[in-house]
Parts: sequence; structure tokens; C-alpha cells
Amino acid sequence: MAVAELTAPTCAKQGLGSSQLSYLSARTSSFRRLSFRPPRRTHSSRISCSVNQTAQAPVAVETEVPKSNKPECFGVFCLTYDLKAEEETKSWKKLINVAVSGAAGMISNHLLFKLASGQVFGHDQPIALKLLGSERSFQALEGVAMELEDSLFPLLREVQIGIDPYEVFQDVEWALLIGAKPRGPGMERAGLLDINGQIFAEQGKALNAVASRNVKVIVVGNPCNTNALICLKNAPDIPAKNFHGLTRLDENRAKCQLALKAGVFYDKVSNMTIWGNHSTTQVPDFLNARINGLPVKEVITDHKWLEEEFTEKVQKRGGVLIKKWGRSSAASTAVSIADAIKSLVTPTPEGDWFSSGVYTDGNPYGIAEGIVFSMPCRSKGDGDYELVKDVIFDDYLLKRLTKTEAELLAERRCVAHLIGGGVAYCDLPEDTMLPGEM
Amino acid sequence: MAVAELTAPTCAKQGLGSSQLSYLSARTSSFRRLSFRPPRRTHSSRISCSVNQTAQAPVAVETEVPKSNKPECFGVFCLTYDLKAEEETKSWKKLINVAVSGAAGMISNHLLFKLASGQVFGHDQPIALKLLGSERSFQALEGVAMELEDSLFPLLREVQIGIDPYEVFQDVEWALLIGAKPRGPGMERAGLLDINGQIFAEQGKALNAVASRNVKVIVVGNPCNTNALICLKNAPDIPAKNFHGLTRLDENRAKCQLALKAGVFYDKVSNMTIWGNHSTTQVPDFLNARINGLPVKEVITDHKWLEEEFTEKVQKRGGVLIKKWGRSSAASTAVSIADAIKSLVTPTPEGDWFSSGVYTDGNPYGIAEGIVFSMPCRSKGDGDYELVKDVIFDDYLLKRLTKTEAELLAERRCVAHLIGGGVAYCDLPEDTMLPGEM
Repeated sequence: MAVAELTAPTCAKQGLGSSQLSYLSARTSSFRRLSFRPPRRTHSSRISCSVNQTAQAPVAVETEVPKSNKPECFGVFCLTYDLKAEEETKSWKKLINVAVSGAAGMISNHLLFKLASGQVFGHDQPIALKLLGSERSFQALEGVAMELEDSLFPLLREVQIGIDPYEVFQDVEWALLIGAKPRGPGMERAGLLDINGQIFAEQGKALNAVASRNVKVIVVGNPCNTNALICLKNAPDIPAKNFHGLTRLDENRAKCQLALKAGVFYDKVSNMTIWGNHSTTQVPDFLNARINGLPVKEVITDHKWLEEEFTEKVQKRGGVLIKKWGRSSAASTAVSIADAIKSLVTPTPEGDWFSSGVYTDGNPYGIAEGIVFSMPCRSKGDGDYELVKDVIFDDYLLKRLTKTEAELLAERRCVAHLIGGGVAYCDLPEDTMLPGEM
Repeated sequence: MAVAELTAPTCAKQGLGSSQLSYLSARTSSFRRLSFRPPRRTHSSRISCSVNQTAQAPVAVETEVPKSNKPECFGVFCLTYDLKAEEETKSWKKLINVAVSGAAGMISNHLLFKLASGQVFGHDQPIALKLLGSERSFQALEGVAMELEDSLFPLLREVQIGIDPYEVFQDVEWALLIGAKPRGPGMERAGLLDINGQIFAEQGKALNAVASRNVKVIVVGNPCNTNALICLKNAPDIPAKNFHGLTRLDENRAKCQLALKAGVFYDKVSNMTIWGNHSTTQVPDFLNARINGLPVKEVITDHKWLEEEFTEKVQKRGGVLIKKWGRSSAASTAVSIADAIKSLVTPTPEGDWFSSGVYTDGNPYGIAEGIVFSMPCRSKGDGDYELVKDVIFDDYLLKRLTKTEAELLAERRCVAHLIGGGVAYCDLPEDTMLPGEM
């Protein structure tokens, strides 16, 4: 079979019909104009699909990617087949679209390869990755896409890269919002809220406009609870309960610290809740957590340690890691994002739960409504969750819940202008960023 | 159950008997002396297991880790259970010991989490990771171990960190040798051979002395073929065929480039051989490779492209990536190492093969004996492999095989002093490092 015979139907099968092919062709022309490269050989229409053909003259791309452009399909991922027509793939599920923002960053560099390998969504779940970056990171996005190509993941059927959330989020069923501006020198949580609020307001609007009506959104960029709130408030047509602020790394760290203290392996720790904000006011809950099925306080009799040292151990983990390793914890953060997704797409083990920062409206704990607060959740594995009712509270726990709730209410006042709440008034009393986080 | 009751039996079950506990205690004392920290609270013997308890005063560790010390078990990984005694784990295979050198580097930072997750060795294969670093990287190793703790991988039952290969390689069944000195400015392949040869000679001796008698060794550090040769020549009691030089990333890239050219998805490309050296003389073999089961030359009729552009496209990939992404290809390299292992522990699909740089003694192709040369292999999934016999050669392919063979023979002359071959004589004519590699 000759190449020329293969090319056109291959693209066409994936819905790359003539209009899209001409779009790609136009896009290629635009690249060509920008970079003053010699005209391409025209005998092969495949080349117009492949961004990595522009490797010779990438300079213009870096600064002149027009913001309104549609995302690029990348290289070999422009050329997939009809999965239903093939023996090995016809039993697979329908392709899902997963958007990742901050896709050129280190957390994504770990996460994308996990997503593509099938270990998160399952080994019969083909996946399309939509990578959102910035003009500045566009070339790095191409590099990431090249490494994904070179990894030959059978389940990874499409990769698109782009800088406009209105294009990249088109029809996505999952949006993993990792990208955010890091704190500048001397900047506190209030400053970060202000800078990143705009980004998440825009991304919420974009999701509302173009994403799947039941898209699940996990916000990682800090401050993730209030960023998730901003995002959901700007996406009124998407159920508010679909938005999550990631507290899973905190949960994992809390389990590990309890295991260390109790002298057990970490798989013996269950029912771990992180309550509240992803900040130093967060509450790792040792009252409801269990070790080998027993209440933590029965196993760890050093209650002074639980009350006075445990939370700090969990929270300082990131800072210690930066000191030792010289970088922030990208690998374990990516693991925790994968865990957070898996907890929503596989049934929660009987009697256990997981933590996620979710919208408080209708919560059974008496927590103020209208904020994103980490709480214990259970899932049937359908992407949805319900809040766990059988938890207990004592005065110590309630006092701390009140503090983290107050902080989240204050954060909400800081971003009132971004969530339709009138004029913002920011009175955050202290810097509660977790050590080692940006 | 109180903490004190749990602790001792937990350590003891894993073989941490009283002598090892006292070693740990002694080791802790040594840390304490070095860093002039106040004495630890003594009521909890667990703490002596946990390296991360030294976080408060890490300075002395960095420069004064005595080289003769045994590797440290790390934190929660000192405290595992008897797997056979537990319902969820009793059907698991016997724990395997996997050493990784260069464990604080970026490739390892991707690979270790893959190994620990079960996606490489299987989801019923518990694993002990033995991380080899240097004095300089010891704290970073601790950081990596902390992130592995925080990831809560059920299969990861032990993590040890150390700087002495004679200790770290004890009983290992796999050794993934990633660490090597990078090229200095202006250094060529010959200089790199010289610098890294010593490292791989020492590691070969260490494997010979303490590793499992059937350890499988994959050398990634460059120049990987000749490093693998040095390693195996210094490990005479381990079968020479157990040593591999990694050419799997080249194989994966070659498949991707053929797929792109043919306009097919990469899963349609099979029987891809990388012949020879992991350098610019390597030969990605389009004569024997297949696309949709057909010879590549029948599918890609642009034979000029195959002969003149294909190899360069494969080899330039790393350089293009560095330009775009600003870093070398750690993620896809880690994927290719995982692929290389999986190819040895799972049966090769009927009719297909994979490439690995292996010892040439007894090869059926007429390639000079006594070097490590990438060739097509098949495995029954038992960790072993056999060379594929049904391959064809033409003049073009043979001419290129001769060139890469000549280079490997020249590299062998450069390291003669390290492999019992007398006085070294180094006459490498040109720099054949692959673009983007260090």
C-alpha cells in the first residue's frame, strides 16, 4: 500500500474532513509566513498535520502564536484510526477528552504520562489530551507533545496544544487546572488570590462556554479552594459539585505521617479527611481516621502528638522536601492528582472515603455554604461523589473547622468582584500558604 | 492496640531483628554526632528507623555520610509487614529488589514512580527500591524517598538509600544504571568513556560481589553500550547476556517517525530494530521493520527519505526536544526503560521483537564478538531473551552495521584497561554523541 493512499482516509476517519484539513493547511501557511521558511514540499498532505515539522524555524512561533487560533493537533496524533474498526481496540470505551492547563510545567510532566499510560482512567479508555499553555510556553508544549509521541502509548489517540482556553476546553470531560502564576518574592496569599483569580475566572467562563456539560474540574493551582470557587461561579451552566480543589496530597501525607507514628504500613490507614482550605488552616482529621480499622486515638495513645505535632508534620512536608530535593514535589503531586481522579472513576472501597475540596451548598456538617471546602467524599465510580454523613466531631475538631471556614469566607470576600459578589474587601490576617508551595 | 506493642514486631517481621535495629540506632547516633543535634526522645524506637526525622539538621549529612555505611531503610519503608500474613497481599509474588543508580536525577524521578506503581513489574509484584546516589546527592535521595512515601504505593514495601554500590546492590535482581557523569564543556565521546568507565567498572565489581547471581542489568548512562561492556567484564560471575545497553528510546522514536511518514498510528509499526551503538552510528533498520504487517519499503515508497532522512530524524529528536523544552527527554527516557523491562518480563508478541544492546558472543549475524551491540531480541517473559534469527540484510544495511561495529570496537580499545584487555589505545575519529544527550 502506498503512502499517498493511506494518508487522506486516515485523517478523514478521525473527523478531519476537508474543512479541517484546509484549516490545518491555512494554519501551516500562517506558520510559514511568520517564520519566513521556504515553502514545504507539497507532495505529502501528512506534513500539514505535523507541528513538529516546524522544528527548523521555531522562533516566530514563540512570540507570534495568535491567541485566537484553534489548538494544534500534534504530529502522529493527527493521524489516528477509527478505534471501532480494529480488532484490538473495538472493545475500548469511547475516547475521553482531558484538558490539562500548565501543561508545560513539572507537575504536568509527570501527570500527562500517567494519564496517557492508562493507569488513571483504565486500560480500555482511549484518551485525547488537550494541553493548555501560554505564548511563552508554547514551544515547551511542543516538546511535551514530542515526548508523548515517542512514548508510543496505545491509548493516547489525540494530543492538541493551544493557548486559548475557549479552544482547548472544547468538549472536554475532565479539566485538570494545574497552571497558575507562582508567588512573586514577598507576595502573600492575598496577592496570589488577586493574580490567579483572573485566570480562573477566565477558565471558568471558557469551560462554561465550550466544555462538556458534565465536565469534572480539578483545580491544583494555588490557592486552589478559592480558585475552584471562582471557576465554578464563572461556569453557571456546569453543576457546582463538579469542581474540586485538590487536597489529596495533604491526605496522602497525613496517612503517611499517621503510619509512621503508629509503626504500621501506610495501607493500614483509612478514612482520612482533610477538612477545609489547602493552606496552613487545613485540618487533617485524626478523630475520624482509622488504623487497621480502629480509631487513630486508640492506636496512637500519644494524643499530645496528635494535637500538637501531627498537623504540622503534614504541612511542613513540602518545605522539607524543597530543602532536601531542591525542587517542589512535582512527582507526588502528580500521583495525588491521579489518585483524586481514580477516586472519582472507581467505586470507593466499602467503609472508606477520600478528601476533596468541594462546594459546600447542602453539606450536612453545618459548614457555611458558598465556599469550596475539603470534606470526606465517597464515589460510585461514575465521576460523581456524595458527602460522607457518618463522621463525628469534638470541640477540638470543631474549633479548627471554624478557623479554616473563616479563612475561606475571608478569601471569598477578597475575590467578590470575580464571583458576582460586588466589591472585594480583602482582610486576610496572615500568610497561610503551605511551606514549599508557590 | 498501643503504639509500643506494634512497633517492635513490625520491624522484626521484615527481618529487622535486634542486630539491625541496633545498627540503625548506631547510625542514628552517628547522625546525631555529626550534626550536634540534641538527643532524640527515646520512648519510641520507630524514630530510629526514620531518616526523615533528621530533617531539622541536614547539613552534616550532606558532606559526612561515611561511604562504608550500609544503605538506610527510609521512613515508613522500615516498617513493613509480612505480606504472606495478610489477606490482600498473600497472593502476591515474592518481593523483588531493584537497584537504581543516579536515583536523584530527572530520569529516575520519572522511573521510580513507575516502578513503584506496579505498571512495570505487574500489580502482584511487591518491590524494594535500592537507591544509589552520591555524597553530593544524598539529601536529594532523601527527598525522592519522601515523595515515594507520600505516594502511598501499596506494592512499594522497602526503600533504601545509599552511596556505596557494594551495599546498595546487595541481592538485587534488577540493576538500572542511570547515573553517569555528564559531558563537560567541549568533552567528546572519548573523554566521557574515560570518566564513566571507572564508575561502571566499580559497579560491575560490586554487582559481581553482592547482587543476585542472575541479576538483570540495564545501563542507561552514556556511552551505554561500552559502559555495559565494562560492567559485564567486571562481573565475571554474572552471565554476560544479562547486561543491556538501553536503545529502547531510539527504537520508540524510530517507530514514531515511520508512523508519521506512513500516515499511520504508531501501534501499526512493528519489528523495529536498532542495530549497534547508542550513538550517531546506530542503525534504525527499515529493511526488517513492518507497518501493518507489511515491509516498510512497501508502505513507504519514498526510499530516498528512508535512506537519507529517516535515521537523522530519529537521532535529532533529542536535540530538537532540548531546544523546545529546555531540558533533556527524561520522561520519555523513563518510559523507554520501563518498556525495556516489560519486554523482558512479559512474553514478546508473536512475530514481533524488541531491540536491546546485548553482548555479541554467539550472535548469528556475524557481528564481532566481545562487544555490546543493539540487536533484535525476543523474550518468553522470564527476564531472559534470545536473538531473532529471521532477519534479512542488504548491502546498505550491512555497510552501516560495519560502521557502528567499527565504532564499538574502537570504544573497546579505549577502555581496554578497564576490561582486562591490556593498555588502552583511543582513536575515536569523531564525536558521535547523539544530539541532546549528555
